[in-house]
Amino acid sequence: MKINNDFFMNLAINEAWKYQFLTYPNPAVGCVVVKGDSEILAIEAHKEAGMPHAEVNALKAAFLKYHPNDVLKTLNDSFKIHEYLIKNHKGFFNDCKVYVTLEPCNHIGKTPSCANLIKELKPNKVIIGHEDSNNDAKGGIETLKLADIDIELDCLKKEAYELLYPFLKWNSGTFIFYKMAQTLNGSVDGAISANQAKAYVHSLRDKIDLLLIGGNTVRTDKPTLDARYIAGRAPNVMIYSKNKIFDRKIPLFHIPNREVVISDDLFKLLDHKFIMVEGTYTLLDTLKEKLDYILLIVNPKIRKGSNALNDLDIDFEIVHENYIGEEKLVFLKRKS
Amino acid sequence: MKINNDFFMNLAINEAWKYQFLTYPNPAVGCVVVKGDSEILAIEAHKEAGMPHAEVNALKAAFLKYHPNDVLKTLNDSFKIHEYLIKNHKGFFNDCKVYVTLEPCNHIGKTPSCANLIKELKPNKVIIGHEDSNNDAKGGIETLKLADIDIELDCLKKEAYELLYPFLKWNSGTFIFYKMAQTLNGSVDGAISANQAKAYVHSLRDKIDLLLIGGNTVRTDKPTLDARYIAGRAPNVMIYSKNKIFDRKIPLFHIPNREVVISDDLFKLLDHKFIMVEGTYTLLDTLKEKLDYILLIVNPKIRKGSNALNDLDIDFEIVHENYIGEEKLVFLKRKS
Repeated sequence: MKINNDFFMNLAINEAWKYQFLTYPNPAVGCVVVKGDSEILAIEAHKEAGMPHAEVNALKAAFLKYHPNDVLKTLNDSFKIHEYLIKNHKGFFNDCKVYVTLEPCNHIGKTPSCANLIKELKPNKVIIGHEDSNNDAKGGIETLKLADIDIELDCLKKEAYELLYPFLKWNSGTFIFYKMAQTLNGSVDGAISANQAKAYVHSLRDKIDLLLIGGNTVRTDKPTLDARYIAGRAPNVMIYSKNKIFDRKIPLFHIPNREVVISDDLFKLLDHKFIMVEGTYTLLDTLKEKLDYILLIVNPKIRKGSNALNDLDIDFEIVHENYIGEEKLVFLKRKS
Repeated sequence: MKINNDFFMNLAINEAWKYQFLTYPNPAVGCVVVKGDSEILAIEAHKEAGMPHAEVNALKAAFLKYHPNDVLKTLNDSFKIHEYLIKNHKGFFNDCKVYVTLEPCNHIGKTPSCANLIKELKPNKVIIGHEDSNNDAKGGIETLKLADIDIELDCLKKEAYELLYPFLKWNSGTFIFYKMAQTLNGSVDGAISANQAKAYVHSLRDKIDLLLIGGNTVRTDKPTLDARYIAGRAPNVMIYSKNKIFDRKIPLFHIPNREVVISDDLFKLLDHKFIMVEGTYTLLDTLKEKLDYILLIVNPKIRKGSNALNDLDIDFEIVHENYIGEEKLVFLKRKS
């Protein structure tokens, strides 16, 4: 296997995917810091909006690899990490390469500018996966170039683009994914997922703008649709149903600070940026042209049961996969 | 992400899985060489029986990383690489760590002993995933210990065991896997796999001892069952059928140097070490207790069609996954 720029960028991309969706409204970004030719110092990612960017996490971890007991270890706030590194780096990064999946941000928002931090630390080279088209944040490449830092663009650009795609979509309109669980052979009957996968779904619910669910699922399953497994925020819900009459004792109607809309107007989806669809197989055919992803949770067992997707005809690309315990999480992007 | 022994061993394990089954009758083995704490010099694997072992490929690549134009580059034969490295290493490996998924071999077979090579190169440490229980090859750890080389055992032992499992099975009896292709939703109708996946299946046919196929599949599909996509060897075939009468014009009967047996006696399988089963869904229930793996090739599309596995009830563990082009290759081990 070749140990080259693609190899290191791939480590950054895989690390970032672990936090895909969970960084909303920010993009998922990964960063790797390599000293010399191939000494790996850090593989880090942006984990949640408001928390340090991938570059900050990676530069901090890289510095600590050589200075394990440095006071930097105790700093978690982005501004403080920036300030500390700029003051104390003493040229540590001058023989380092920084691999980052997305152009470093150039603006000061909830966290300070990564391009500025990198400029001050003066690494030997910055290798970038994909440029940032976001008007607020772009300009990082320009900043680094003006500081005479060597830059290489478009490293694993296609993979970096796929990592960025949900952000590009929710940033310019609406990103919709359908979450479903099935067995290896496609059965959706009965309880499929283990608790670890359920907790992951709750962490998604905690982030999304809207949860879309079918009326029949609500009537049959009487769900709560909250994020209790992670003590998170319950999302607003849209129930897709022509018939507006529901038993108001169903738990989902009794969550504080939640809006519930009952509607059969799918145009309402466009009022939201980040939408998860659950349990509405019958709606999938109608929705399929609007769907960006299916997030498929696969339990590795074979079981008799009905196959909810059998009447569809859609082509996908597997853009990433992770494990959740023994189960598989497959990010499928619809081919348009 | 922690950059530690597990991280490097994981790189070695993933590299080895790329050649799983293709190393038959040898085990799939991976090796990573790291200089100092975390400077990655090589990530290599054993690729085919008779070719250099993982350690030899990795030690060669590591040396070449620092000496890119050395004459070592031109050597491909194991004996010659051993001899050259022992003569010319000049202490290069003394500050290196060698991660190997399996205890280095201690015997001289088609290739010389890896334990002896490592002993001579004197790396700082050897980290081993799983011990070798093979009577012919074991003893490598002992050899290294006697040479005062620091050894750490059982690094990612469970993952190293899963990598080794097919070898353990065919070495002590029979390893049987069922190869099948399906869409995301489990449909098996029509042509599913792309050419790249077909070529991979042919490379498996080139290695196995026996291909088991159902009589109905033979009668309906009239297959050739050779390895023409890779210009490989066509495997011997057992057709599982009570009715012994077949149209002898079916191409599979006309391959030179191939044995074809028509039988409904599954005990005959035990005369072979490495068996692939193709296209006999009806046989799966009978066979399921004997099956070690399902090798599932998943095309990421949803299509209407019949679900061949729906009448089974089996639990699996996903032991590894690779991509073949846009398709997914899933190694599923039956839970017993």
